[in-house]
Amino acid sequence: MNVAIIVAAGQGTRMGGERAKQFLELAGIPIIIHTLRAFERCAIIQEIIVVLAAAEAAGFLSLAGQYSLQKLTKVVPGGATRSESVLHGLKAVRAATAEVIAVHDGVRPFVTADEIARTVAAAAMHEAAVLVAPVTDTVKEVVDDRIVRTPDRRSLRRALTPQCFSYALLRRAYEEADVLDPELTDDSALVERLGHSVAIVEGNSRNIKITTPQDIVIAEAMIKEGLWS
Amino acid sequence: MNVAIIVAAGQGTRMGGERAKQFLELAGIPIIIHTLRAFERCAIIQEIIVVLAAAEAAGFLSLAGQYSLQKLTKVVPGGATRSESVLHGLKAVRAATAEVIAVHDGVRPFVTADEIARTVAAAAMHEAAVLVAPVTDTVKEVVDDRIVRTPDRRSLRRALTPQCFSYALLRRAYEEADVLDPELTDDSALVERLGHSVAIVEGNSRNIKITTPQDIVIAEAMIKEGLWS
Repeated sequence: MNVAIIVAAGQGTRMGGERAKQFLELAGIPIIIHTLRAFERCAIIQEIIVVLAAAEAAGFLSLAGQYSLQKLTKVVPGGATRSESVLHGLKAVRAATAEVIAVHDGVRPFVTADEIARTVAAAAMHEAAVLVAPVTDTVKEVVDDRIVRTPDRRSLRRALTPQCFSYALLRRAYEEADVLDPELTDDSALVERLGHSVAIVEGNSRNIKITTPQDIVIAEAMIKEGLWS
Repeated sequence: MNVAIIVAAGQGTRMGGERAKQFLELAGIPIIIHTLRAFERCAIIQEIIVVLAAAEAAGFLSLAGQYSLQKLTKVVPGGATRSESVLHGLKAVRAATAEVIAVHDGVRPFVTADEIARTVAAAAMHEAAVLVAPVTDTVKEVVDDRIVRTPDRRSLRRALTPQCFSYALLRRAYEEADVLDPELTDDSALVERLGHSVAIVEGNSRNIKITTPQDIVIAEAMIKEGLWS
């Protein structure tokens, strides 16, 4: 079984509203539902586990009922950090049947079923694979407010999600991680620390993470103009 | 004299339309005019040179007349590459009175007068300073489709414009550059190659470069919602 863990336990404090950002609507549908639908449409994924703040669970289940999600098997409570939330999701996976685990941000609704499928397939082959997008800006490495290096942009990628790993590898990475470290926001980095090679899968910049009110404006414009649909 | 060189010689081929992108309108005003107004409002800038495709010059001058730009002194024809266009602008600067040169992309209309002033001031002190924004995504260094390094995001910045330099330093950097190399899109990198230290000035992510139809949609949304105004 290939299992998606959708991490949606954030409180959305940067959003300035009362609702966690994953429940805000885009084109009349909650962001988290857009996200889940991409995984529903992706045949390579057999099961979906959603990690949510405990207070959101009841409301989410009623919402999920409205949209008849077929692959959703568990809703588990989030932790104090993103990493702890992923770990909670990982502990809910049935080890006996688990193959590839696809960890995805609940607030990345523009991922496509094709991107998910290609990343899972790469992880099935290499044990670890991350969806990425090109870096369009020049990136500078800085020390003490001075530029120390300009890496070649062609060798850089932005890490998106899903990030996909064999179940055993991801469990091992999380066993060695300090999941209470709030700076740990990238699952691939934990696997890289084990010395394991991680493959990249080229994805589209459209797959943005919605974390600020500006992002909502951009996402609405993206949908309305059909430019990313 | 602190002189701004506004590079707007691009043909906008990625835009898919007939007009070069710097002449498309945002909120009813051409992008290039929004950009020039930021420099008009910035007291530390005394003179503005615009680099344009030769075919656009006449149309631009009539446009500039409508918006009564006070600091615009010259319109010079662009080159075959961005670097050659900057060099054409640089050759139009009066060496005898030049102090700091602020090179800015014509299609970055959301720069503020304050950001320009702070970057020019930093260059007056350190000879070279670049406006930057935080990197919000995890960035990976990649070789042969494998991740080889995850630099600490806190040590990375995205290079924006203006990029500001003492006139003598920028002339020297351009004398040693192959300005026909289309990959040379970052003035700071030329100065870094000389071994000269470049300072950074923290700016806002709002200062986007408008190069695709999607960027126009985002820019319109930014203005309409007043989120970046």
